[in-house]
Amino acid sequence: MTRIAIDMDDVMADTSLKIVQELNKKLNTNYQIPDLLNDIKLREEFYANYSQNNSFLWEKGFFEDIEVKPNAVEVIRQLQNHYEIFIVSAATEFPESMKEKLNWLEKHFPFIGWTHTVFCGHKYLIQADFLIDDHEKNLKTFSGTPILFSAPHNLHLTGYERVNTWDDVAAKFL
Amino acid sequence: MTRIAIDMDDVMADTSLKIVQELNKKLNTNYQIPDLLNDIKLREEFYANYSQNNSFLWEKGFFEDIEVKPNAVEVIRQLQNHYEIFIVSAATEFPESMKEKLNWLEKHFPFIGWTHTVFCGHKYLIQADFLIDDHEKNLKTFSGTPILFSAPHNLHLTGYERVNTWDDVAAKFL
Repeated sequence: MTRIAIDMDDVMADTSLKIVQELNKKLNTNYQIPDLLNDIKLREEFYANYSQNNSFLWEKGFFEDIEVKPNAVEVIRQLQNHYEIFIVSAATEFPESMKEKLNWLEKHFPFIGWTHTVFCGHKYLIQADFLIDDHEKNLKTFSGTPILFSAPHNLHLTGYERVNTWDDVAAKFL
Repeated sequence: MTRIAIDMDDVMADTSLKIVQELNKKLNTNYQIPDLLNDIKLREEFYANYSQNNSFLWEKGFFEDIEVKPNAVEVIRQLQNHYEIFIVSAATEFPESMKEKLNWLEKHFPFIGWTHTVFCGHKYLIQADFLIDDHEKNLKTFSGTPILFSAPHNLHLTGYERVNTWDDVAAKFL
């Protein structure tokens, strides 16, 4: 059966939205996702601030209550009828995150389960036919076919097949 | 570079010893590892009891203070000079275990790091040349060369290259 590996942050989960909210709280700013998408200069300023102020990623609770991306649940449930689905998240950098990510998956995607969940650092040792991910570092070293899921930080990337939404994923695979 | 995937429980860590201790505490028994190794009937009784009384695996703290197997640290450190080493542990079944396993690795094997640590369910999607593991379910579905690390529960297995100690691993790979 064709195997699809699916990343969590900014693919299944709207992690960028949570990051924007946390950074706004921390710096008393008012960044908004649509503005970041439309304004390259603002986006560069945002990511410069973020790289200096991202300790909340290591704090308890960050990964527990992130919003699910629109239609992710329904499309992944349907994909599971035709493909072997594994969730592959680069989570070992964040020791507190893994239990929270399991809880999150159990809450929103109870049909996946721990047997098909992988938390790792490097993803290049994952054997799958497709990897749907938002980070070039994961896609460019992947041995199967990489699929880039659009996120504010990867809009400049070219050279990858790109999907913008879970409807795009459904159109490609279903 | 040749890649070796190494399991944690009963390969790097003496998990069977901890299990025996926890079960003795729970059932007020006095099982000892050498007796279990020598006596098949006792071993069967032990594993029957264990399968009914293993809730401690899901409790906080179980995986934090397990003893390191003799020479594991020194041999893995040397392997790292010649091979790409990944730690691959079937840990997603135990939500509390992953932070504890990261702490344990950081304490005893600080030269590995989160980038080369994988927590998963099924291991058959791991791409490596060798897998050193104590469980047949992981070895028989592995796409590279499986190496069976002896543990009380796998003494009956045949058909795999077997190592009994980390000195055996060193003799094979170094």
